[in-house]
Amino acid sequence: MKLAVIGAGAVGRSVAELAADYGHTVTAFADSASAVTDADGIDVTGTLTSKDEQGRVGTADPETAIASEYDVLVEATPTTLGDAEPGFGHVETALKRDRHVVLANKGPVAERYADVRALERESDGTVLFEATVGGAMPVLSTIDDFDPEHISATRGVLNGTANFILSRMAAEGLGYEHVLAEAQDLGVAEADPTFDVEGTDAALKCVIVANVLAQGEREYTLEDAEVDGISSIPGSALELAQEDGRTVRLIGEVANDEVRVGPRLVPETAALAVSGTRNIVQLETDHAGRLNISGRGAGGPETASAVLADVGRLPER
Amino acid sequence: MKLAVIGAGAVGRSVAELAADYGHTVTAFADSASAVTDADGIDVTGTLTSKDEQGRVGTADPETAIASEYDVLVEATPTTLGDAEPGFGHVETALKRDRHVVLANKGPVAERYADVRALERESDGTVLFEATVGGAMPVLSTIDDFDPEHISATRGVLNGTANFILSRMAAEGLGYEHVLAEAQDLGVAEADPTFDVEGTDAALKCVIVANVLAQGEREYTLEDAEVDGISSIPGSALELAQEDGRTVRLIGEVANDEVRVGPRLVPETAALAVSGTRNIVQLETDHAGRLNISGRGAGGPETASAVLADVGRLPER
Repeated sequence: MKLAVIGAGAVGRSVAELAADYGHTVTAFADSASAVTDADGIDVTGTLTSKDEQGRVGTADPETAIASEYDVLVEATPTTLGDAEPGFGHVETALKRDRHVVLANKGPVAERYADVRALERESDGTVLFEATVGGAMPVLSTIDDFDPEHISATRGVLNGTANFILSRMAAEGLGYEHVLAEAQDLGVAEADPTFDVEGTDAALKCVIVANVLAQGEREYTLEDAEVDGISSIPGSALELAQEDGRTVRLIGEVANDEVRVGPRLVPETAALAVSGTRNIVQLETDHAGRLNISGRGAGGPETASAVLADVGRLPER
Repeated sequence: MKLAVIGAGAVGRSVAELAADYGHTVTAFADSASAVTDADGIDVTGTLTSKDEQGRVGTADPETAIASEYDVLVEATPTTLGDAEPGFGHVETALKRDRHVVLANKGPVAERYADVRALERESDGTVLFEATVGGAMPVLSTIDDFDPEHISATRGVLNGTANFILSRMAAEGLGYEHVLAEAQDLGVAEADPTFDVEGTDAALKCVIVANVLAQGEREYTLEDAEVDGISSIPGSALELAQEDGRTVRLIGEVANDEVRVGPRLVPETAALAVSGTRNIVQLETDHAGRLNISGRGAGGPETASAVLADVGRLPER
């Protein structure tokens, strides 16, 4: 397949680097300010060097990438809330041109799911978005395999930054601010960690799962989620939990038509008590009991693997 | 899709019962001695009652089911070794008639993988076999998504009976024979538990995974696996392990072109130390680290869910 990769952050870069390994060709690559296109396949290494050295992937207008010839638009620009622009507009343009879309950007399917599905219905293109929920973990494809109808609930740890902080607080008996600073030093937390520690990122993933499970009967957005973060958890709460053989995890849950994210007490030996930056998702199935999937929930190559798995699932054009 | 279900054990029965829930119709159903067919869909409840009360599903010859009109042959007869008959013959007949095949029977893909693939290449039908490895767990579809080329190793607990026995021996400090008898009373172990406790069942699953990972470059059969069981593990070994924070699990591994199954020491807190009849599979991926999938590895509805997920993945006929 010919891929147009929009977004040159960690995920977009990894998709460009790994595409050939999966038998695909990157014919267009854009960052927010520039683009490079080549119907025979761009020079990925040269393009990434140019991005590192000159701060941009090419000299063309970014719109030329979206307007170029490709089979699949890989939308890997940063997640935005509300109207989910500019990602949503990219999806719209590609679908109106009957191209497939694979999303790493959560915005369009978390904030405007019904709009995306309506555009898809009018298009010969298909939209897939495994990479938006849990990085490398095959969450949405497994829900699809079991049929959303036969999944009664999902819950899990869906943010590695928050989980790293909670794991370290419990293991070292340190306070939130101290561990956050450490996580920032290690590159596990961003300079502005709000999105992760306040539960927004985990909530967006749960909203996407809720949309898939609802099968169009109801649309969810971030506004429908009840969200609590971890920034006000005192170290003493973790100590108390530990005395009782338990620990605290930021759990996202989709059940009974509700989306909730917040710190919860879980047994230290429970599958949900993953440590460090690992993520886990539990699916409660009607006929096959509980299924656990755990792995790396973020990261460039990890998320790119999910993007390329989606590309592999698309029908031929 | 129209399904012909061959085999009326726990898995075949559950496939018949759940098919309608997934939008499919059972048009033929056979046990070893009889069959029932109806192009408009058989009466599943009546057929299962007949099986319970009269010991057979119908009055027709079992061959009529395989010769009838259907889109997918669901092969759910018991796994046999060596020539993998009669399952292999059923697969051959269906593929020669350009029908799809979904296997719950491990024999054909563990013992005659190359033959199955050769028949598939000559056919318009497709062969899928998710249900043969780990019941409800999406192991093969995840390997397929990541591309076998990018999976360097797999390991896991793939037999619930053996895992139940090891879990109970460790938890209660009881000997193997005692716990085996208990497992037989509970219906967790069969009257003849050889297949499970000697590692054969786990080895067959690993051989199937090895065949998928080898992508035709090499064929594996049970003979290629190095297999040790759990029947000679003394209770004292589990006690010693426990003192060291470890436990024993029957681990199947596919790595470096080798298939090995045997009891291994694992930390009590490791993901591999699942308890009771639960199974787990770990995939080592090139680009996305380690992925864990755990769930129910056996059981009628659980395995039927995997069969029906495969049916959902098949191309339209």
